[in-house]
Amino acid sequence: MSAALPTRYDQLAADMTEAIHSGLLRPGDRLPSVRQTCTRRGVSPATVFQAYGLLEERGLIEARPRSGYYVRARSTRSATPQAAAVPAEATPVAVAALAFDLLERTRDPAVVPLGSAFPAATLFPIEALARSAGRALRRLKPEQITSALTSGDPALRQALLRRHALQGVPLTDDELVITHGAMEALNLCLQAVTRPGDTVAVESPCFYAALHALERLQLRAVEVPTDPQEGLDLDALDALLQQRRVAACWVMPTLQNPLGATMPAARRPALVALLAHHGVPLIEDDVYAELQSDARRPLPAKAHDTQGEVLYCSSLSKCLAPGWRVGWAAAGRHADTVRRLKMMTSLTTALPPQLALADYLAHGGYDRHLRQLRAALDRGRLQVAAWVEAHFPEGTRITRPRGGYFLWLELPAAIDTLALCRDALAEGISSAPGVLFSADRRFTHHLRLNTGHPDDARVPDAVRRLGELARAQLAHGGQAPAGQAPA
Amino acid sequence: MSAALPTRYDQLAADMTEAIHSGLLRPGDRLPSVRQTCTRRGVSPATVFQAYGLLEERGLIEARPRSGYYVRARSTRSATPQAAAVPAEATPVAVAALAFDLLERTRDPAVVPLGSAFPAATLFPIEALARSAGRALRRLKPEQITSALTSGDPALRQALLRRHALQGVPLTDDELVITHGAMEALNLCLQAVTRPGDTVAVESPCFYAALHALERLQLRAVEVPTDPQEGLDLDALDALLQQRRVAACWVMPTLQNPLGATMPAARRPALVALLAHHGVPLIEDDVYAELQSDARRPLPAKAHDTQGEVLYCSSLSKCLAPGWRVGWAAAGRHADTVRRLKMMTSLTTALPPQLALADYLAHGGYDRHLRQLRAALDRGRLQVAAWVEAHFPEGTRITRPRGGYFLWLELPAAIDTLALCRDALAEGISSAPGVLFSADRRFTHHLRLNTGHPDDARVPDAVRRLGELARAQLAHGGQAPAGQAPA
Repeated sequence: MSAALPTRYDQLAADMTEAIHSGLLRPGDRLPSVRQTCTRRGVSPATVFQAYGLLEERGLIEARPRSGYYVRARSTRSATPQAAAVPAEATPVAVAALAFDLLERTRDPAVVPLGSAFPAATLFPIEALARSAGRALRRLKPEQITSALTSGDPALRQALLRRHALQGVPLTDDELVITHGAMEALNLCLQAVTRPGDTVAVESPCFYAALHALERLQLRAVEVPTDPQEGLDLDALDALLQQRRVAACWVMPTLQNPLGATMPAARRPALVALLAHHGVPLIEDDVYAELQSDARRPLPAKAHDTQGEVLYCSSLSKCLAPGWRVGWAAAGRHADTVRRLKMMTSLTTALPPQLALADYLAHGGYDRHLRQLRAALDRGRLQVAAWVEAHFPEGTRITRPRGGYFLWLELPAAIDTLALCRDALAEGISSAPGVLFSADRRFTHHLRLNTGHPDDARVPDAVRRLGELARAQLAHGGQAPAGQAPA
Repeated sequence: MSAALPTRYDQLAADMTEAIHSGLLRPGDRLPSVRQTCTRRGVSPATVFQAYGLLEERGLIEARPRSGYYVRARSTRSATPQAAAVPAEATPVAVAALAFDLLERTRDPAVVPLGSAFPAATLFPIEALARSAGRALRRLKPEQITSALTSGDPALRQALLRRHALQGVPLTDDELVITHGAMEALNLCLQAVTRPGDTVAVESPCFYAALHALERLQLRAVEVPTDPQEGLDLDALDALLQQRRVAACWVMPTLQNPLGATMPAARRPALVALLAHHGVPLIEDDVYAELQSDARRPLPAKAHDTQGEVLYCSSLSKCLAPGWRVGWAAAGRHADTVRRLKMMTSLTTALPPQLALADYLAHGGYDRHLRQLRAALDRGRLQVAAWVEAHFPEGTRITRPRGGYFLWLELPAAIDTLALCRDALAEGISSAPGVLFSADRRFTHHLRLNTGHPDDARVPDAVRRLGELARAQLAHGGQAPAGQAPA
């Protein structure tokens, strides 16, 4: 399914996983030491650390200081508790104003970017993209400009269709529309299947941009419990759909933001079938697909769609070209509506970035770049997780995503992370408070940390300082804002 | 107000205008011959033809075949009759589906582009823009990418603020937001001041993209009569505002699309004051400002705004860089709302085009390009007008805009221009039927022709053929589509 070959550490991690599942290694067993494994497998210590790190993320093993790695009984620290009940009322969405202020300040280069939505820009092939842009623009013929279709540049469309097909997702040419980033794709898809006042089912916690889009379109959100390992709770979704009319369901099945949850392959056809049964379109946000550490990746829900009711959205902003604003929608039987809305909203997507990216996808070494990017992100995630373990208050829970560049923390319930984030920002450290990820202001003691800056020397101290601020708040009995009790 | 020097033909036209207004030349007088004027002024015949063409456009003189140019009593052919009454009901908008099919086909390079929304791509400095893109991307620092603000690249913002200030429009830095073309700017501004179900006053005829935006946001349009010379009818607008609540007024005071109307300078403060009196925000679409032939240009309505209630929108798509999708909004006191909506819709505008255009505005020779572009567009407009006069049915009326690349034709009332456009498209000739420009399907015998392809050798035959098709339809008593009587 992946175009990339498995790395050595992937292979090593896969072998160890097999050993654990088969019972060769049992709970409490100590793993071979790093040195032993290097000798036996003929690999470097870095490879072994990465492999063990992945197993740790998956909750299969744990590190015991000055002792070594041990097989775990069952992951204790990786599950974030979820609100189990479906809320009685769908909630009008109004988180944008809050998010706006925090996010704008996050972009200041002087601020440590733990609240950022993007990995470090240094991880992207800026020079190769500039060369591609130069080549593509020198080749540009005038008639290409005015004949550019609403659906996008043919060469880029072809490159994307080919890549998706190789990954087991046969999108069709006539459903594909190039958009101004995934954000526009998601907005167009959402508008294609809803009307103001409608209710949309979203994950809980939910990527704040989804909540913004709902707010902009005057839709109501109903949050469905979502597990850091299993993704969206299908039983809860089923119960919801039997209770009330829902116009659409917006899901990020792979490396969900902020949880990092990747819904197992086996549950994805069930998600598609459940929604089809209730006649509810699925908007699938797949922007993190290329950032999965696992060589073995589940197919997107789109691959299981037989009715044309999955509106698939993705982009190159997280994996190749942040700031270039090139995304796409493959909207199944809603494609004509999406294309018309695209024409009404922005006519067409900027041509120069499309041409540059088509050239890069053909000649730029995309898969090599992705291998390097994933390795850097894996490193960043493991580092930050270790610092959180070292410095955050007792009882802090932390997710272990299999890729990407976010960790989701549940702090002790007395902590108000919105106040924490404001205090940290005053010291030049950004972070994303849990309330951003909920239309009904849940997750008051949760925090999303960006781990995608593995070479930023300020990060270790910033994580330590966040932990200190949290411990200080706890020592003072929490600092809830006026009028709101600590959860 | 313009950064460009007046051309020789502008100067000559200005002198002749002065002579007519002062009574030196009176109605019926024959103008000096082209040869005489060449000798007296030391200019080329082309300069004299261009000057006389401009005077003809302004309705001041007329050409009599094989005789010469004469001062006109009063323009007889330049006024398009308008629906005078304010409609009793605001109309939900649904023209997008119709426009979509016609416009997509218009982009086929094999089709003669009389229905296109853009001038010929060969008129734009593609190579200079490619050089600017190369320079700008080589200079790009990684931190610029992730620190890019929702408001846009600082260098581009600075260049635009400077240019507007030199033209007498002092926009402020904190109201300016760079957008994905003017279309996004207009959509964001519209959404900032309306809610679904609201009524918006628009010109009649009205640029179809405005109607699309209204349709997308589920707004109702009320059309206000608009004169090809004077622009929006302020008395009709006043009457409307006294009758009903209007959430916003969307106006294109300069080179209105499709009429080509430029509201005289003296009426603009009155427009702003009238709307302010009724508390109605003005959305000003100024994308054609740089395409005015006149050296003496009226200030945009924005320059008369004292309350922050003019939301000014423009772009570089029509005058410099079609397909690059770089526009802007300066939304006065609604700027924060516009910026938040921008973040919710598309986060930020693509960075590479912004950087390239900032470089071009600093080094590319923009004013020289604009002089060449305006001269080419003037030539195209005069040519097509002459061919229409020669080949269209008796009674056809035609506008004479002072710049840009559109002519608006009123054909005899029995003609159905939608059927005409479909027939012509079947022969490889595109055109824009009048019904596209109205929410209530007025202008059934009107046609917008793109004149921005002065070097396209297919155009003369295409215009002749359109005229033939119109005459043929007239000979058969009109060809109204089933269920709709000819207007």
